[in-house]
Amino acid sequence: MIGVGQIPVTKGLDQPIREMAATAIKAAMNDVEAPADSTAVQAVYTGNMLSGMLSHQQHLGALVADAAGLRGVEAATAEAACGSGAAAMRWGYMAIASGAYDVVVVCGVEKMTHTDRYETTRALATASDWPNEGAHGHSFVSLNAVIMQEYLQHYWVNRSLFAAFAINAHRNALTNPNALLHKAVTIESYEDSPTVQNPIRLHDASPICDGAAALVLSSAGVAQSTRRPRVRVAASASATDSVGIADRRNLLTLEGAAASSHKAYQQAGVGPEDIDLFELHDAFTIMAVLSLEAAGFAEPGKGLWLGADGEIGLTGKVPVSTMGGLKARGHPVGGTGVYQLVEAYLQITGQAGPNQVPNARVAMTQNVGGTGATVLTHILERMD
Amino acid sequence: MIGVGQIPVTKGLDQPIREMAATAIKAAMNDVEAPADSTAVQAVYTGNMLSGMLSHQQHLGALVADAAGLRGVEAATAEAACGSGAAAMRWGYMAIASGAYDVVVVCGVEKMTHTDRYETTRALATASDWPNEGAHGHSFVSLNAVIMQEYLQHYWVNRSLFAAFAINAHRNALTNPNALLHKAVTIESYEDSPTVQNPIRLHDASPICDGAAALVLSSAGVAQSTRRPRVRVAASASATDSVGIADRRNLLTLEGAAASSHKAYQQAGVGPEDIDLFELHDAFTIMAVLSLEAAGFAEPGKGLWLGADGEIGLTGKVPVSTMGGLKARGHPVGGTGVYQLVEAYLQITGQAGPNQVPNARVAMTQNVGGTGATVLTHILERMD
Repeated sequence: MIGVGQIPVTKGLDQPIREMAATAIKAAMNDVEAPADSTAVQAVYTGNMLSGMLSHQQHLGALVADAAGLRGVEAATAEAACGSGAAAMRWGYMAIASGAYDVVVVCGVEKMTHTDRYETTRALATASDWPNEGAHGHSFVSLNAVIMQEYLQHYWVNRSLFAAFAINAHRNALTNPNALLHKAVTIESYEDSPTVQNPIRLHDASPICDGAAALVLSSAGVAQSTRRPRVRVAASASATDSVGIADRRNLLTLEGAAASSHKAYQQAGVGPEDIDLFELHDAFTIMAVLSLEAAGFAEPGKGLWLGADGEIGLTGKVPVSTMGGLKARGHPVGGTGVYQLVEAYLQITGQAGPNQVPNARVAMTQNVGGTGATVLTHILERMD
Repeated sequence: MIGVGQIPVTKGLDQPIREMAATAIKAAMNDVEAPADSTAVQAVYTGNMLSGMLSHQQHLGALVADAAGLRGVEAATAEAACGSGAAAMRWGYMAIASGAYDVVVVCGVEKMTHTDRYETTRALATASDWPNEGAHGHSFVSLNAVIMQEYLQHYWVNRSLFAAFAINAHRNALTNPNALLHKAVTIESYEDSPTVQNPIRLHDASPICDGAAALVLSSAGVAQSTRRPRVRVAASASATDSVGIADRRNLLTLEGAAASSHKAYQQAGVGPEDIDLFELHDAFTIMAVLSLEAAGFAEPGKGLWLGADGEIGLTGKVPVSTMGGLKARGHPVGGTGVYQLVEAYLQITGQAGPNQVPNARVAMTQNVGGTGATVLTHILERMD
């Protein structure tokens, strides 16, 4: 990874989706410090989920490449619901690893706030097993409510313990200028926040918003000529589970996340104990907890306590949502996976400012489509 | 490529989209002749354009993998408008070439006939530059009409010369049981067919339909243990042009197709003269003509005459649409690119039956998104 770019996550952005993506891509290209002739971009992979449904615009791949001044290069769109951004990263990674290209751009973009909320919620539900979930009125709030309720009942824990994840995310977003929400959450405001669908409170859920992020990947050879410190993609992994929650063996075990994490650890030759920060997919606080458990940071039923024990903060055992996470930086769905990678890159290159995790050298990101159906895990490592 | 599968292209199919894809995938997996333990599928890449808009179902990647009995493997969706199928192939190719996997499945699927025609046409127009084309009422018929009109005027040729492409496609479809249309077209029926949008007649356009096709790719090592003849993917290439036709330097030169073809020829170390058949993207007869010119089979303005001169038939200089093409096999958009690859495979392995191109050893496929904006070219070569 030799450069990153992002636009601030917002609501009500009055800009075409292609321009959002192009702005992030140009920022990423400008961030590359290397002789320009050696870093000509050869392909653009864009992660997006909703543009066809909400903006009447499919075919974003070619459109975004052209808008970014890269007409002619290979371009396509990757879709894996809310995991679309990291799916684009996976494609870009393979494009480099296969030897096809030396320099590619990975972009993630979503524009979700320009249509009415009903339409957006309905479009998001196309990430579910539609005939069995969405068509019956399930939304991602209600699906996560089922899973959170199961957690509460199975482990017999207090619902307010989930507050720690919202509090941490909002605290970190306060000092991230690219985050959507700049408002602290306390245990009191968490408990006062309305219940959207029992047991999910407003502060358990990530917001609908607009955003775009991008990064530049290169071969090791090209990376040699770029600035230090250098960042290596030590692992790129993906695994799946059933899309419908009724088909899971166990609602509280994210088997896709466990498999994806395991593959990534194997590739990078590391384990949870080597990870300095974990940008997890906190679309809902319950997903943050289950991800920590699936990725081996806590035993089943113990992920919740990492929050309560203060271990998820910037100086904790496993810092999460270090720039605000999906909860407070925001969750522009097709963009999220790339925001996570950009933030992880900023952390391990020492560019995270007030949000810096001390001595961070190895970062893991995990982007999830649906309620755990597609799970993409990347491990980034600082080289020097 | 070690196995292929397809379902017959139809209209009004009463089957969920995931089952369509799963049927094609299972057929492709059953087509592999090798010890089963060496050909366990590790990833599924699905090409699709319209499912979110027409079936309320995004996230097809994981859904299709699960339906095909492959829950757990990596899965994602590739989208590049009508080029989505070959975009999935491109991803699968990179997954093997990068060394990430030894065996992957590539699938293309589209279900388009279950909603009303207006909705389908509108969804298809999301492949255009929406704010500048679709939103102004342009459809793919009208955009291709503009390009065809330009061709007629610029080269001062008779509109009826385009008939040869429809006649050839329909003739070949007669003996393809998987084709949608089994009805011969003559010069008379072509000229009698209604003008949809001047100068495009009904018989210049491909039909809206449902379909799914799949193939299995493996590393060279795994392929060693499979049946003969073996098929090598000698080239996999992609290039883009502007999505909007107003941004093209020249409406009659498909620059994306020329660049994509050139890359493919370079990779495979061949030229047009080495290609035994060319499965081109005849969504409209004008696209077939421009593709032949862009890929170097004819000089600009001369592609049309390959049809008139009888060179596009099964025994001609450059056989096209050998199983019916988009025009008569049908054009289930996200599926088309994979159907083309499946058909090319059947041709060069001598399994094309009455449609067999004599002594075919090298086949080229070209799948196009939009009116030439994303162009994916593959060259398949028979190894022994």
